[in-house]
Order: sequence, then structure tokens, then C-alpha cells
Amino acid sequence: MRIIVLGSAAGGGYPQWNCNSEYCRLARNDSTRAFPRTQSSLAVTADGSRYLLLNCSPDLRQQLNQTEPLHPREGLRSSPVKAVVLTNGDVDHIAGLLTMRESEPFSIYASARVHRILTTNSIFNVLNPEYVRRHTIALSAPFRPEDAHGRPLGLEVEAFAVPGKVALFLEDASRGGDFGTEEGDTVGLHVRSPESGASFHYIPGCAGLTDSLRQRLDGSGLLFFDGTLFRDDEMITMGVGKKTGRRMGHISMNGEDGSLAAFRDLCIDRKIFIHINNTNPVLVENSPERKIVEQAGWTVSRDGQVIDL
Amino acid sequence: MRIIVLGSAAGGGYPQWNCNSEYCRLARNDSTRAFPRTQSSLAVTADGSRYLLLNCSPDLRQQLNQTEPLHPREGLRSSPVKAVVLTNGDVDHIAGLLTMRESEPFSIYASARVHRILTTNSIFNVLNPEYVRRHTIALSAPFRPEDAHGRPLGLEVEAFAVPGKVALFLEDASRGGDFGTEEGDTVGLHVRSPESGASFHYIPGCAGLTDSLRQRLDGSGLLFFDGTLFRDDEMITMGVGKKTGRRMGHISMNGEDGSLAAFRDLCIDRKIFIHINNTNPVLVENSPERKIVEQAGWTVSRDGQVIDL
Repeated sequence: MRIIVLGSAAGGGYPQWNCNSEYCRLARNDSTRAFPRTQSSLAVTADGSRYLLLNCSPDLRQQLNQTEPLHPREGLRSSPVKAVVLTNGDVDHIAGLLTMRESEPFSIYASARVHRILTTNSIFNVLNPEYVRRHTIALSAPFRPEDAHGRPLGLEVEAFAVPGKVALFLEDASRGGDFGTEEGDTVGLHVRSPESGASFHYIPGCAGLTDSLRQRLDGSGLLFFDGTLFRDDEMITMGVGKKTGRRMGHISMNGEDGSLAAFRDLCIDRKIFIHINNTNPVLVENSPERKIVEQAGWTVSRDGQVIDL
Repeated sequence: MRIIVLGSAAGGGYPQWNCNSEYCRLARNDSTRAFPRTQSSLAVTADGSRYLLLNCSPDLRQQLNQTEPLHPREGLRSSPVKAVVLTNGDVDHIAGLLTMRESEPFSIYASARVHRILTTNSIFNVLNPEYVRRHTIALSAPFRPEDAHGRPLGLEVEAFAVPGKVALFLEDASRGGDFGTEEGDTVGLHVRSPESGASFHYIPGCAGLTDSLRQRLDGSGLLFFDGTLFRDDEMITMGVGKKTGRRMGHISMNGEDGSLAAFRDLCIDRKIFIHINNTNPVLVENSPERKIVEQAGWTVSRDGQVIDL
């Protein structure tokens, strides 16, 4: 199984279009100190030729252009991308579907809640049902993703609920502190090669670690995990926003309630932060915060990173 | 007045994600013979610091990253982009609005028909009305675009109806050969600097030249015009699609009904094709078709091109 990190940043990417912070200026002006990053997505293949996307970012066209194994190779129109799994309905995870128009057969796997976003937004009708098959996935029920013609890609995926929040544009303040969030709004994925037995977990958005989630992840060989913020209030203290990480549905790295502490006693071979917000100091090479996460046994993902399992 | 071509390709861009044609392979492998192009959009400024976007393509984040004058410069969060005018509701002209989330004040100008697409697709609710002002424009009624705080950008814009087609994802086959197209679905723009008197026309989508459109454009100093296809049936003969240009709402360059013939007797100082589809042979430098359009007095736009008027 091969994993390609197509994008490692959170919504807005790094740099973000309207952000003039020190970190974003660094990404524009000195990419040796801070690598620019597109929005969060992985490509996975079991056979080296047919790929499954985990999330579909607004930067997808750029990501595909930059990733030679994902260029079309067969006939006049084709793509190595055969299927997509969505972990939630946020813009940074679904807008890339608009790039995947142009009558190309592929399959979309998502929860009923996320599919509802696609069906109630007519703009996604550019995905012609003659070509694009939409599959509803159930939580905690492993499935084998297929291309649009029903051919399995040689991977098994299990989606499981994680603490999270409904997509920003669907928040309903009248429904209390969780803004109308329901099960299936945010999922994590366990991706496995039934042939080799290799597997990994992908959780780009997660509001906190429950006991059942800890049990599920303990013993994992590889984990990509929500690295949105370093400090829960960093957007507020930097003066770029009004929301805490908690309000946005993301656990932060630092602090007693943070992910570094939460994972300390779990046995996971390789822990990689992904979905990193442009305010997170771990984006800066050799920053004190980068050193803290590395000393805690984590690495910070980069666009174009390739991992073979 | 300064114009920056942010993107010069039609929907899908060049190369298109799933296109393995000779032309798209050329754009991937030999950019000296065929420059890659992102999807159609212009940035215009009267004062050199505040910009108006004409359309907002899915490639907007990449376009802004590549265009230094559009990087934020003031405070922690800001953008030189102060307003957007939309000429229709196609994905290649509106999806970039999803990049312009993140609580940045700006104004959107569009016809009532195009605004309806934004309001009926909840994903565009990421554009918080606290920051983003939506103005409905009337046809043939010049207006002066303002930033979100009501400060005029020093430009005057007139939108006028051109023959076209409703957005693909809203086509209604039950409503006959025009698929439910109504006035305001596709407009052209006349952009003028009231201070200098300089002006140009921008018509990235147009199904044909009516007499009134010919009269309007005769005498123009600069025209950006729909260069989607060279031949009306080129997508069919290349084997990459089932539709003619006419069916998609685009006049082609070639032939008796084509734009080269239609503009032959009009007096226009500078004629530039934009919104060029990846099947159009004029994308290839020195192709016979490129020579034909150049001999007819046209040029083919490129991303990053700057024109001062």
C-alpha cells in the first residue's frame, strides 16, 4: 500500500489567501523555513495504479497536476483516481469534487449526512450520475471501495464516528452548543490492504479523544491525526479569529486536554499530524513547537510525502 | 487601469485533470510548446492597490499565490481583492468564492439569476454576510463597484446580456432547446476607468454575435472574448465529448458562423481570446490554428499576462 500526502494544511491552506501573519509571509517568501501546503487530502493505492482519495480539497486540480502518478495514462480521458471517501462536509474536504466534473467515472463514499450536503447543493450536479456513483457508508461497517464499474480497488475502509462538528455552513445556532451536529458529520477512517494486512488510520478532524477512540487507535501502525492548532486559543491570541479550536471542532496539540497528552500512553508506531492550520507554529521548521511535537514522537506532514506500508 | 490575466483556460483548465489528449500531455510535459493555464478570471485595478476580480475560478487560491500584487499587505488579515463581478453561474466562474471564505470583507456583484445560485447552494454560506456584501446588478445599467465598506474602487462596470446558456448543473431538459436559459444567465462586461476614460470589454462566454452586440463592441479599445473552441465539433472529432460548442453555449473561432468571421469587419484595437478549452489547438504555440487566429488580428491570452490601459 502506498500513501501520497496530496495536501497537509487545514482549510484555507498555507499560506491562506488573506493572511498576512508572520507564518504566512514566511510561506510566501522563504519556503526553506516554512513549506507552503495545500488543503488536507491523501491518495492511497494498493496496486500502484488505481487510487482512492481520502477527502477532496479545493486545491485538487493543483494537487493532481503536481503528482505525476495521478496523471491520466489510458485512452483520451481517464484518471488513476477511481474513488473518493469523504470524512466530513467541510469546504476543505468536498470542494475538490467540483474539479472532478468532466464525465469521468468514479465512486464517492460518504455518510448519509455528508451525501445530503452534496444532494442539496445543486452545484454538485456537475457530477453526472451516469458516471459518478454515490455510495452511503455505515459507521463501523468495513467496506471495499470500488471504481464506478464495480471493480474493487484492493482496499478495505472502515469509517468510525469521532467527536466533531457539523460543517460550518450548516451550523444551526438554535440547536445549542453543538450547532445541530449529528453522528456521521465527522468520521475517522481505518484503511487496510486485505492482501498485505498493512493498515493506517486517518482522522483529519477530531474534537477530542473518547475512551472508545483511544482503544481503537492503540496499537495502530500509522496514524494521520488532526493537527489544526497547537494552542486552543492561538487564533484569538494571534488576532486573526474569534474561535477556539474547541469551537471549531478540533482538539489542539498542547495542554492537558491536548493531543500530545492524550496519545502519550498509546502504542502507535508512527504518528503524523495533518490538516494543520496556518496559525500553527509547527509549520515553521525548527520552531520550538515543532521540536515539542517531534520530542513527543510526532512528525508534521508535508505535501508530496510518500509512505509505503 | 491595469489588467492581470489570472486564468485563461475554460472549465477544467489546461491540462484538464482527466485528459490524456496530445494537447494536455504537451501542457504537462513541454511547457515551452504549450503553456499550462488555469481557469478563466481577470483582476483589474484603477489605483494599483485595490483589485476587482472578474469571475472567480476554482483555481483562485493558486492564482492568488502566483500573483504577488494580490498578496495581503495590511494588518494580519487583508486582501487587495475588494470585489468580484460574476458573468455567469458556471463552476469555472463561481467556485473560487469558496476560497474567499475566512471572514474577509468584499463585495459580490452578479445578476439576480446568478445570485440565486449562490443563495440556493448552502455551501456558499461560508461567505459570512457580516463580511461579504452581495449586490444585484441590472443589465445595461453602469455601476461603480465598491469594497464591503462602500468605498468605490475607481472603476465603472456595465453588464450586458449576451447569447448564452444557463449553468450546466441547472439545465432543465424539459424546457426545450435552451434548457431554461433566461436573461442574466450570461453577461458580458464593459469595464471603464472614469478618471482616465480607458475601458475594455470582457466576454468569456458567448453563444453568438447579435447585431446589438456587434454595435456595442465596434470601436472597443480592448476585447477579451470567448475562445472556448476552434471548431464547433472539435470535442466530438477528438473523441473526448458528445457536445458541440453551440450546445455548450459557446461560439467557435472557425467557420462562417465563427468569431473570426463575425469580428472581421468590426473596428477593435486589440482582440484577445480567453476561456480557451483544452481541446483548442490555438493553445499549442505555432500551431496552424494559432497562426490563423493571429493572422486574423487576435492573440491568445496567457496566465500572468499584464495589460496597462
